[in-house]
Amino acid sequence: MSGEVGEGGIYRSRLGKPMEREAAQYLSSLLEDVEIFEEDIDGTEAHVIMLQEQGIITRSDAGKILRTLEELREEWRQGKIKLDPEKFEDVHELIEAYVVGRLGLQIGGKMHTGRSRNDQVALDIRLRLRRRILNLWGEVLRLAEALRLKASEEKKTLMVLYTHTQHAQIGFLSHYLISYAEHLLRDAERLEACYRHVNLSPLGASAIGGSTLPLDRLKVAELLGFEGLVENSIDAVSSRDFLLEAACQAAILMVHLSRMAEDLVLWSSSEFGYVELPDEFASPSSIMPQKKNPCVLELVRSRAGRVCGLLAGLLASIKSVPTGYSRDLQDVKPPLWEIFNLTESTVKIFSSLVEGLKFNRERLGENALKSYASALDLAEALIKEAGLSLREAHRVVGEMVRLCLAKGLTLQEAGLPLLEKASEKTLGRKVSLSLKTFREAVNPASSPMRRATLGSPSPRETLRMLKRLRDEIRSSERMLRLKLRNLEKAERKLRNKVYKLIS
Amino acid sequence: MSGEVGEGGIYRSRLGKPMEREAAQYLSSLLEDVEIFEEDIDGTEAHVIMLQEQGIITRSDAGKILRTLEELREEWRQGKIKLDPEKFEDVHELIEAYVVGRLGLQIGGKMHTGRSRNDQVALDIRLRLRRRILNLWGEVLRLAEALRLKASEEKKTLMVLYTHTQHAQIGFLSHYLISYAEHLLRDAERLEACYRHVNLSPLGASAIGGSTLPLDRLKVAELLGFEGLVENSIDAVSSRDFLLEAACQAAILMVHLSRMAEDLVLWSSSEFGYVELPDEFASPSSIMPQKKNPCVLELVRSRAGRVCGLLAGLLASIKSVPTGYSRDLQDVKPPLWEIFNLTESTVKIFSSLVEGLKFNRERLGENALKSYASALDLAEALIKEAGLSLREAHRVVGEMVRLCLAKGLTLQEAGLPLLEKASEKTLGRKVSLSLKTFREAVNPASSPMRRATLGSPSPRETLRMLKRLRDEIRSSERMLRLKLRNLEKAERKLRNKVYKLIS
Amino acid sequence: MSGEVGEGGIYRSRLGKPMEREAAQYLSSLLEDVEIFEEDIDGTEAHVIMLQEQGIITRSDAGKILRTLEELREEWRQGKIKLDPEKFEDVHELIEAYVVGRLGLQIGGKMHTGRSRNDQVALDIRLRLRRRILNLWGEVLRLAEALRLKASEEKKTLMVLYTHTQHAQIGFLSHYLISYAEHLLRDAERLEACYRHVNLSPLGASAIGGSTLPLDRLKVAELLGFEGLVENSIDAVSSRDFLLEAACQAAILMVHLSRMAEDLVLWSSSEFGYVELPDEFASPSSIMPQKKNPCVLELVRSRAGRVCGLLAGLLASIKSVPTGYSRDLQDVKPPLWEIFNLTESTVKIFSSLVEGLKFNRERLGENALKSYASALDLAEALIKEAGLSLREAHRVVGEMVRLCLAKGLTLQEAGLPLLEKASEKTLGRKVSLSLKTFREAVNPASSPMRRATLGSPSPRETLRMLKRLRDEIRSSERMLRLKLRNLEKAERKLRNKVYKLIS
Amino acid sequence: MSGEVGEGGIYRSRLGKPMEREAAQYLSSLLEDVEIFEEDIDGTEAHVIMLQEQGIITRSDAGKILRTLEELREEWRQGKIKLDPEKFEDVHELIEAYVVGRLGLQIGGKMHTGRSRNDQVALDIRLRLRRRILNLWGEVLRLAEALRLKASEEKKTLMVLYTHTQHAQIGFLSHYLISYAEHLLRDAERLEACYRHVNLSPLGASAIGGSTLPLDRLKVAELLGFEGLVENSIDAVSSRDFLLEAACQAAILMVHLSRMAEDLVLWSSSEFGYVELPDEFASPSSIMPQKKNPCVLELVRSRAGRVCGLLAGLLASIKSVPTGYSRDLQDVKPPLWEIFNLTESTVKIFSSLVEGLKFNRERLGENALKSYASALDLAEALIKEAGLSLREAHRVVGEMVRLCLAKGLTLQEAGLPLLEKASEKTLGRKVSLSLKTFREAVNPASSPMRRATLGSPSPRETLRMLKRLRDEIRSSERMLRLKLRNLEKAERKLRNKVYKLIS
Repeated sequence: MSGEVGEGGIYRSRLGKPMEREAAQYLSSLLEDVEIFEEDIDGTEAHVIMLQEQGIITRSDAGKILRTLEELREEWRQGKIKLDPEKFEDVHELIEAYVVGRLGLQIGGKMHTGRSRNDQVALDIRLRLRRRILNLWGEVLRLAEALRLKASEEKKTLMVLYTHTQHAQIGFLSHYLISYAEHLLRDAERLEACYRHVNLSPLGASAIGGSTLPLDRLKVAELLGFEGLVENSIDAVSSRDFLLEAACQAAILMVHLSRMAEDLVLWSSSEFGYVELPDEFASPSSIMPQKKNPCVLELVRSRAGRVCGLLAGLLASIKSVPTGYSRDLQDVKPPLWEIFNLTESTVKIFSSLVEGLKFNRERLGENALKSYASALDLAEALIKEAGLSLREAHRVVGEMVRLCLAKGLTLQEAGLPLLEKASEKTLGRKVSLSLKTFREAVNPASSPMRRATLGSPSPRETLRMLKRLRDEIRSSERMLRLKLRNLEKAERKLRNKVYKLIS
Repeated sequence: MSGEVGEGGIYRSRLGKPMEREAAQYLSSLLEDVEIFEEDIDGTEAHVIMLQEQGIITRSDAGKILRTLEELREEWRQGKIKLDPEKFEDVHELIEAYVVGRLGLQIGGKMHTGRSRNDQVALDIRLRLRRRILNLWGEVLRLAEALRLKASEEKKTLMVLYTHTQHAQIGFLSHYLISYAEHLLRDAERLEACYRHVNLSPLGASAIGGSTLPLDRLKVAELLGFEGLVENSIDAVSSRDFLLEAACQAAILMVHLSRMAEDLVLWSSSEFGYVELPDEFASPSSIMPQKKNPCVLELVRSRAGRVCGLLAGLLASIKSVPTGYSRDLQDVKPPLWEIFNLTESTVKIFSSLVEGLKFNRERLGENALKSYASALDLAEALIKEAGLSLREAHRVVGEMVRLCLAKGLTLQEAGLPLLEKASEKTLGRKVSLSLKTFREAVNPASSPMRRATLGSPSPRETLRMLKRLRDEIRSSERMLRLKLRNLEKAERKLRNKVYKLIS
Repeated sequence: MSGEVGEGGIYRSRLGKPMEREAAQYLSSLLEDVEIFEEDIDGTEAHVIMLQEQGIITRSDAGKILRTLEELREEWRQGKIKLDPEKFEDVHELIEAYVVGRLGLQIGGKMHTGRSRNDQVALDIRLRLRRRILNLWGEVLRLAEALRLKASEEKKTLMVLYTHTQHAQIGFLSHYLISYAEHLLRDAERLEACYRHVNLSPLGASAIGGSTLPLDRLKVAELLGFEGLVENSIDAVSSRDFLLEAACQAAILMVHLSRMAEDLVLWSSSEFGYVELPDEFASPSSIMPQKKNPCVLELVRSRAGRVCGLLAGLLASIKSVPTGYSRDLQDVKPPLWEIFNLTESTVKIFSSLVEGLKFNRERLGENALKSYASALDLAEALIKEAGLSLREAHRVVGEMVRLCLAKGLTLQEAGLPLLEKASEKTLGRKVSLSLKTFREAVNPASSPMRRATLGSPSPRETLRMLKRLRDEIRSSERMLRLKLRNLEKAERKLRNKVYKLIS
Repeated sequence: MSGEVGEGGIYRSRLGKPMEREAAQYLSSLLEDVEIFEEDIDGTEAHVIMLQEQGIITRSDAGKILRTLEELREEWRQGKIKLDPEKFEDVHELIEAYVVGRLGLQIGGKMHTGRSRNDQVALDIRLRLRRRILNLWGEVLRLAEALRLKASEEKKTLMVLYTHTQHAQIGFLSHYLISYAEHLLRDAERLEACYRHVNLSPLGASAIGGSTLPLDRLKVAELLGFEGLVENSIDAVSSRDFLLEAACQAAILMVHLSRMAEDLVLWSSSEFGYVELPDEFASPSSIMPQKKNPCVLELVRSRAGRVCGLLAGLLASIKSVPTGYSRDLQDVKPPLWEIFNLTESTVKIFSSLVEGLKFNRERLGENALKSYASALDLAEALIKEAGLSLREAHRVVGEMVRLCLAKGLTLQEAGLPLLEKASEKTLGRKVSLSLKTFREAVNPASSPMRRATLGSPSPRETLRMLKRLRDEIRSSERMLRLKLRNLEKAERKLRNKVYKLIS
């Protein structure tokens, strides 16, 4: 950045001394403002165009300012802008100082007319956050799709479904994968809902009470692709619920991924042996040659914790800020971007990981076959065929399992006689089933086929759910593309106006 | 509860020993299940009716079970049911034990057919939570309305608008109140969005993999007023994002109330003197006779912290639960209900408080009149009339304020000459304004009248925003009433079916 | 409580109206003050004795007040005191109102002389918290002892030590148990350190600035068994770091228990099969007869999350309270007691659980024997005998493991030739070991015996560590007993003085 | 770093494929490891020296490795080492790859003998964290000293002491400042206590179960200045309570600073006008020329929230990690360093700020003089001279204040007659004081002089507390210097050994 420019302190009209060095570093958000550098230029350009169209600044001045901003953008992209936190409090000061440095106080000094850093930083956060939300939304859909595709492949992979990390019922692996695709679709819905609160323009609120100048807030909003205004000027500079909402959605999403990671870490233990991570996602030991560590999954888990903590920090910080703009409301940026960095990278890696997972179908199947997880099927058979009440059937089968465990037999191996014995012991009378019914009921391999309820892992339901999933992913993708196109359209319009005024 | 019933342990078919006393207390959720006692009965009734309509249990058995459930409900309402955590793990066990105790294992034991505590507890939480959400939504609208009415009363109350707890611009008190009504409308929107994820039926998922019995999930959902199913059976018992979402919305809402409380505590200090709490909301000192303490507001502040912490706890707990039901997922109830208790009581008290607030209009006005908060107006006047750039005007007025401070003068008292002097010093040339413009610009009393932007506290904008606010509150009320009516309709239908089967 | 007493509002000298009903409920801490009811009486008694000894109130008045307080204590213990939050803001008001109700304003009204609720509530929290800390400390030592005893029993139980939930090295189960006993000893140290900050008397700070009356703060402190004063009167009423510190220690302790619970849940899965929970600590399924669920462990896990959240809430609440007493500082009690309730009950249940755990030694041993976890031993043998560098040995053994996996062989089964082949492939030369060394190195059963480092699971180190553990537990027990005795001594002295003045 | 070295993947003996690019970035901690780069070299050097002294590697090999490490350190200091997260998982891999690259697999490959990344990263975190703790401790003492000095200057500055942000009693500004110095001394104590848990060596635990090589753990510990070992090898690699404890202490400290910041923001409002921030710590508005914003204080406030959130994140992450090393335990570094960065910079800036604060003694005094905060003094005078009970006196003075407020009079202005009137109204009899007593009692200027209790703001107590404060700060400084000297001594010894072996 040219030497003649911005010796800093462009705002310090009234304060006698420059900021103390250490204080300047403590205060400056310049380094973290990398995230909103171009957003600040975009927002400023839209503002300047509006100022010109409203007759507040001349066409010539507007042209010069816009040209300088475009030059700055170019220098920025080429990595020529040095960020010195002792020199500038934030990106807003840097950019204005650059323009004033180039064009002088008389022309450059007009750029900020009718605007304050208070509405400006709210604008920049919203501009950037909406982009981050759309990106995350896209990644969420990519992961949902990866899960759906994997589920399609694993429709016939028998597996034990767990509750309490214990065998519960028999199902298919696809059912597990579908359940998380469903979680992610809700995450996508939450991101969409939150986008609507984010994508509103605060600009024109000025410091907190609006301006006496004839600013056209709607025009700026339109040029920047916003769907509306945060109308009340206090609300515009002081509220941060829009970003708390986004942080909440990210945290909930991370909770989902963390739980999946918990499952997969467990499943990749040699005791479970259900899944092997692709080599290119596993990490070796520095010393134990035999290891293949699911480090990526462990990091998913810990980053979920970090995101939840960052959210807790945001809530704690914001809850005690008096109304109106205070610097605390700038300091939300580092945790906010970190939440999105951690979340987006985690969703991304998870998609690649899911695509590369190799499930050990044999092991999954074997475990299911030797499990007692068809005990509930047997109990339900007793209800249907022998007319027992659930509670009676529960006792009979419970006793039968106890006997099987003592003898080291599966239900299949134990056979009908043990069932009858168990019924005599618990109900005081012999209850039985036809051999066919018994055999079917205790056969884990066919267990899911007999499941009769909506949303169960029966093959029919699985197919139906996969289809519905596909439709819903597509529908969410369409909605996302619509939002993206709206932003592109606004962007093109803004670019056109900028070029017209420059030339 | 009659002695013959439920020696506890109705589920312990297989386990040899009764639960250890201390463990039973640690484990039991019975005391906190007070919150879902009737929900559990409602859900069970709908389930039993479905079982009968699907031909899984007879009409006669269904009738007996339903009658017993209604008797239990009656005993509960009369306070006759003792809750002994050492006897029952939870309300689900207590209720089934009651029915089995009355009707015996053969009939009573049919009540739980095709159901598991896993889908049952998810059902109960959803039944209760949706009610809590609707109640909270209603309270939020009541508070928004109280703010709107207060704002209507304070349309002409001049006040300083603060940034950094420093004087920023001049506005009206109504503008402040409107800004929070806007926050609350967004809170209402978030509650509505979240209601849609909560109001879905998980019942029929059984333990985790559905049932081989021909359960009609949609029928149960309809009888209970749900708008749809959580389809996938794993999703139904394992997911808790629906309640995390509700907890997030509550936390964001509490952040809003906490910030308002921060303002009001400050404003009720004798240094500010802007507002007096109604006596019936203030607390005296136990020892200092002169005190009138804003304790209610301080508790709003601290309870916001508590709610944020409870949310952090929920996230931390749920994020590490493997997929499928685990007992951790029951243990979310105490923090969840506490979040809603704290939040709902806070919104309620805040409404009453807002209604009773007495603002000291004179003090507010005086402070505005002697403030430098019209400095920005003066700077904008220099831009409009003297053609200065914002940055030039900023310097001139900044210098003028410095001179005023040194001399202890307001801008009005200082007059045009000091402006001219300041311009000479900072710009090296004399810049001036017409006397009329100057006088208008530095007059705090008329400052908001000149505000030209959308969403500013100008009288015109204030009226427009108040009107819009009214419309939006009404519209949200209508939506809320619709949801409530749907629940009532379903409730009536369920009651009718119950009574028909009983008689 | 007798009707003639305390129509409430004993403090409301200046405020015109009684507190609004809803506000009273919102404000009152009466229900949660159950926790400090007797502490408030104790503290008041010590205060009254001091007032008498300093000549501020007469012996006769003191006697009457003390007798009334003792009567109240008796009624409280008999469950005769009704707590009505609409009537009293807190236990302090209730107790004073009771005394005033009995003795009239002239005598009863002297009880609170020189005291404020601000120092009084700080006193009560400290009195109660120090007791909770000592109790928790005792439970922590009981659990450490249970772990030590279990470790003594499992000194020869071979097991795989895990990193990344993958087999890492071979050790003994005792080593695992000792490691947690070590954690708990640090927890005990932290509780002791924190006790020192808690066990200081704030009384005598009055509202915030001390009193003009000749109160003897040291005498009160001594009567109540405190080790010193929180001297500065602002500090005494405003600081809450003492309880944040206690909450932090509890949270860290819960993190330890949660991690152990994670292990045990995993180990009780049928895939691991390492441990069986005692029947009396396990929970059945309501529907799946085969289940034995580790619910207690799952609750340990979730309650750790809840405690961490409660801590986060406390931090968030306290961080924004201006200096001096504010009602926020009362509202810390519910989360604080909940933290201690959850933590203490969890440590307790964990002790009983550890005592009852039945480890499946065969399964643990088998898994160790067929594991590759002696690969590091083999690599170290190559370093010692064949002079390879660690990195060379790592490559050779890594290759050997890869070959073994492909062929489904253990290292033992694969034998020396495969090692030589692996070395040729990776280092380009044949490296070998003596057969004896090789056999020893790859034998998991003898692996821990060869461990040479301090703190390793070698039998010698295990014995040494068990002994040291015993000494340290004993030493911490002695320190705890000392603290308890000090409290008892003070308690006796206070009782004596009370009885003397009453009679 | 020379091209021939470390094509990455030094550990990937067994895994077929290099890590996927995206996964590598997700996994690598290289960028954050900047914080422990030299610690890793130091730890490695001590380890290599021990290996040589134990005869595990030759003197010649040790010398070469140490020389290479020193060369690397030099290159690092000169900024020549490029950190490429796609190439190395962490600093440990980078450093070993560098050495292997220079010295070849045969010699360089010996560096890591008997060590694992698991104990290594625990070592590095402890080495770095203990330094951060000592630095923070030093800054805490500097701030305590700044507060003490300021308190000495403000011993005679009369001020209102606040409770509930309302006037409570009269005191001196010094009293406020002393109270925070006391807080900070406790923070220093907590840091010292936690240092003892941090400053223990985990090295020699190897992966998790120790080594078969004759490593001398105590020697390494001594060379690195540790005060002991984390003995049990599982404990050494798996436990993280040492850093949770440090994070807790930092969070509590930040809570203190946040509360002070709350006060100072308030006090710098024009309504209070108690303090002016030094210009070099204040920030101007970008648009309002009159503003001088306390941004630094606002950031203190928000950073306290962020630190609390980071702690919540650490707790949430660690609580669910199974025992043994997992990658989650590496991922604690970014939040941990951020906690210390935020906390240390905040304490530092606060010291400078306190030194520069200019209190407006007149305004403070005026506010005290016109306050009702001497009402308690008056009540106590009634107790002492007129023999009223506290509760009677409270009523009388409460009524008097009410009358004063209605008439707009101070207590002084109202005079004795109003007191008598108030007593008649509330007690039904005239109670009075001697004129002298009354005048003294209601004179705010002399109020603190009459305070009789230990720890009150009486001039005598103030002097005593200032002296004690001085002694305690000195004593803590001595303890800190001792710790620092111990580290320096060890450092010198290690340097000597390194140089001896190199040459």
